[in-house]
Amino acid sequence: MLVTVLGAGGLAAAARTGMFAERPDGCVKPDRSIQLYAVELPKDGTQVRLGYGLTPETASYPGPLMEMMEGECLAITVHNLVPEATLAALRTNPSHPLGVSLHVHGVKYTQDSDGTVQSGSYVPPGGTRTYTWYAQPRNTKTGAQGTAGYWWYHDHVVGGPHGTQGLAAGLFGGLVVRRPGDPKPDRSYTVVFGNQQSINLRRGEATDTCAEVNPQPGPTCLVARMGERIELVVVGIGNDMHTFHLHGHSWADTRTGVVSNGQPFADSVPIIDTKVLGPAQSFGVNVVAGESVGPGHWMLHCHMQFHSDAGMSTMLHVLDENGNMPPGMDHLHAAAAAPAAAAAPVTDDAAHQHN
Amino acid sequence: MLVTVLGAGGLAAAARTGMFAERPDGCVKPDRSIQLYAVELPKDGTQVRLGYGLTPETASYPGPLMEMMEGECLAITVHNLVPEATLAALRTNPSHPLGVSLHVHGVKYTQDSDGTVQSGSYVPPGGTRTYTWYAQPRNTKTGAQGTAGYWWYHDHVVGGPHGTQGLAAGLFGGLVVRRPGDPKPDRSYTVVFGNQQSINLRRGEATDTCAEVNPQPGPTCLVARMGERIELVVVGIGNDMHTFHLHGHSWADTRTGVVSNGQPFADSVPIIDTKVLGPAQSFGVNVVAGESVGPGHWMLHCHMQFHSDAGMSTMLHVLDENGNMPPGMDHLHAAAAAPAAAAAPVTDDAAHQHN
Amino acid sequence: MLVTVLGAGGLAAAARTGMFAERPDGCVKPDRSIQLYAVELPKDGTQVRLGYGLTPETASYPGPLMEMMEGECLAITVHNLVPEATLAALRTNPSHPLGVSLHVHGVKYTQDSDGTVQSGSYVPPGGTRTYTWYAQPRNTKTGAQGTAGYWWYHDHVVGGPHGTQGLAAGLFGGLVVRRPGDPKPDRSYTVVFGNQQSINLRRGEATDTCAEVNPQPGPTCLVARMGERIELVVVGIGNDMHTFHLHGHSWADTRTGVVSNGQPFADSVPIIDTKVLGPAQSFGVNVVAGESVGPGHWMLHCHMQFHSDAGMSTMLHVLDENGNMPPGMDHLHAAAAAPAAAAAPVTDDAAHQHN
Repeated sequence: MLVTVLGAGGLAAAARTGMFAERPDGCVKPDRSIQLYAVELPKDGTQVRLGYGLTPETASYPGPLMEMMEGECLAITVHNLVPEATLAALRTNPSHPLGVSLHVHGVKYTQDSDGTVQSGSYVPPGGTRTYTWYAQPRNTKTGAQGTAGYWWYHDHVVGGPHGTQGLAAGLFGGLVVRRPGDPKPDRSYTVVFGNQQSINLRRGEATDTCAEVNPQPGPTCLVARMGERIELVVVGIGNDMHTFHLHGHSWADTRTGVVSNGQPFADSVPIIDTKVLGPAQSFGVNVVAGESVGPGHWMLHCHMQFHSDAGMSTMLHVLDENGNMPPGMDHLHAAAAAPAAAAAPVTDDAAHQHN
Repeated sequence: MLVTVLGAGGLAAAARTGMFAERPDGCVKPDRSIQLYAVELPKDGTQVRLGYGLTPETASYPGPLMEMMEGECLAITVHNLVPEATLAALRTNPSHPLGVSLHVHGVKYTQDSDGTVQSGSYVPPGGTRTYTWYAQPRNTKTGAQGTAGYWWYHDHVVGGPHGTQGLAAGLFGGLVVRRPGDPKPDRSYTVVFGNQQSINLRRGEATDTCAEVNPQPGPTCLVARMGERIELVVVGIGNDMHTFHLHGHSWADTRTGVVSNGQPFADSVPIIDTKVLGPAQSFGVNVVAGESVGPGHWMLHCHMQFHSDAGMSTMLHVLDENGNMPPGMDHLHAAAAAPAAAAAPVTDDAAHQHN
Repeated sequence: MLVTVLGAGGLAAAARTGMFAERPDGCVKPDRSIQLYAVELPKDGTQVRLGYGLTPETASYPGPLMEMMEGECLAITVHNLVPEATLAALRTNPSHPLGVSLHVHGVKYTQDSDGTVQSGSYVPPGGTRTYTWYAQPRNTKTGAQGTAGYWWYHDHVVGGPHGTQGLAAGLFGGLVVRRPGDPKPDRSYTVVFGNQQSINLRRGEATDTCAEVNPQPGPTCLVARMGERIELVVVGIGNDMHTFHLHGHSWADTRTGVVSNGQPFADSVPIIDTKVLGPAQSFGVNVVAGESVGPGHWMLHCHMQFHSDAGMSTMLHVLDENGNMPPGMDHLHAAAAAPAAAAAPVTDDAAHQHN
């Protein structure tokens, strides 16, 4: 086993000795550097949980929501603090190397930052590795598209060559790349739909911080005041298709989730309240909380009936302008939430959101 | 049981006593009021069937196609005529309240018209409740998107908190919200793809009114003359993904299903003859019957092979300008239809369309 | 059996005797005529393989990539060289006729060229039949949409009324309809995702021509030089949903896969590196190989984790400007590819691409 680890480390080192560029064209040097820690979290029942964090203590799943501006080049140094024994237990093939990695969607990176086994761009247990992401801007001369959008990042190595065990354990997070002038949300939440997992925003009675009477924003509670601009970074993982649905609110199926003021409304821009979501897809929802429809407990759920019945359902709690839920709804909410919570097995647990 | 019903009724009443607005912002008072009856229909084999109707006698599944103009505010009074025993038999949890509801996609509504258990906005057996829908217009100043589009409505309460049993039984229908200037179809049909259900436009030999030799428009028969503008309101329900395909015709993947005359054709507007459809998605197909391709029996089917082989396949019968099918095709059609019909079990039955 | 065949042949002949137009409106006469041969290929294990070819000797699956310009009318004469016994063995119902056909997406055709049983437009064993496809141009006066796009063609008759057995055996291929001014790719590859099939670009050790050290373009090898414009014609077949993902590269979700030089970049044009793909869907990916990210082995895979783990994963090998893979990557690639190949059962085999 040790030989394998060393071997993998050796390959990783070899891959970094100049065969491939360290940075994509257009990124002369990183504009910003951050540290990212991959750690083991407490198990959910028998389910191993891993998370990324900006510090080891704040690791979570989903991991921290990353934000970049187009044109920016970001260096992320990943520290693999996951115990080797944990990685070995998740491995599906004894010849597969041990390590974690960082693979990203949407932005640019060289083979050196691909996060795959065959490029050697992963991090053995106890090791570190710096990944470089370039939010390439649009270029009307060359036709380069630009990388602004709602994306995500994830492990590509834990367990097998596609990181399936790393993803299932929690090594994923959202990424937003913005352009100057993009709408600025008041609150951002990452919402992930996965297989064998409920919507990962409420963790069950024990860890759910959503008070029934007057819920306030917290690690497992989607809350907004009337009129606040809410951004949801929606990501699919796993094996299954889903249909994301939010009650009472609709958004534009555009890069930003809105039709900007001043832009003409076009019949080719779909306005939706439901969107099919497959594994690895990601999109942004941008709504003004309670606009026209008022405060209340607005359901957010997968609209595949067997998924919602199994517990893939949560609430966007829209408070009034003073930050209170209008009276009378709390016990109704509690009554309705009970059966749904009961239907969700413990392993159908969920991650806390970024806010 | 009675206590539960009363309890649920009590909650519903409580929710209506002014805690939440009855109407969304922008709707000062309803522009129009209609009655909608939820009734039990004859069973298909052992499958319970429910339907919405503008009268109790005309209830069907899908229910009546609703049409609104942007800016309009519609009050719909739902009468729950479904026997309490039927609702009790469909219930998956004895603590779940008995009732039917009306939840809608796309347009605006307050918690009072959400149609969910936790908002108390459902209708106990024998009761009535008025739901208010507001087809909010686009607003270039505030950025509000507007609600024109192809949507649908459905129960959210029968059987469990997501209305899964109500949907499976038939409590759903299409909704079109138009803008001034939108193309006016000559005929509209609602086409629903669901799990454990064939395409719901032909009900099998016993109830199918499509004559083989010279089919005419009828409750289970998609027919058009050459040159007529046909609008299909396509809706997904249930648990499964589908791919909707229509032979010989293509449409624009826009809000209206067309690229309007005078608008530039843009490479960002997909022209399609196949569209992935997930549960709760809805879209519009807008074609000129037989344009370029002529009359005939044009297949309309799910392109997932095991779905089409199981019977999710019907025809758009395009007649000539005189309303006749050109001779020679009738027996071919009969021959081809036989094995498909045989492959579809009785419970894979289907709803009649609106026309 | 013989009677059935004759009967089917008789129906086909009847259908051609002038009841329906032979050509769609707008096609006065074919601008070009080609021959297409449907043949039986060597089995993959026990899996029957059929293919289309411009000659019997070059038949393959996917079949040849077809290209048309908008406005063009193409006559394709299909020769059914598949042995009658093979078609009989694939038949799921003894009353189903024996034959192969050609059904196409996107372009226009009359019932005479629909390729279905009920229109009689198929080819009995040993027979020939001419299909006419019309790449209808856009018409701003009538609102006709135009048929430029990424499409595909396939059998609709082998085994049953939806050609499910013909598709599973390999009777499908890509079609590109272009407009004047469309980007001209340096290389085109057809990539098909199907159920019970790996991505059909690498056929396993025995038939894979991709050299590890310095891969060159070949029948089962996706290769490009830095800076070449690569076009992928991506098609879904079968029963399952997939999510297509390409590492390091992104494209515009437009008709052409690019935002043309000179066109404004709009927030309503999604830039993606992942796209959900259902059966019968088709789209184009248009990328400049290695742009910004450099040369290397760039993964192309289904991002449903159980699909990629089962072997739905290949590489786009991007060589440097001199046509060489930078040194140091070959053994890493070999090491990583091994487990993936091992995970793919023999019947999860795949077709060779067009190039």
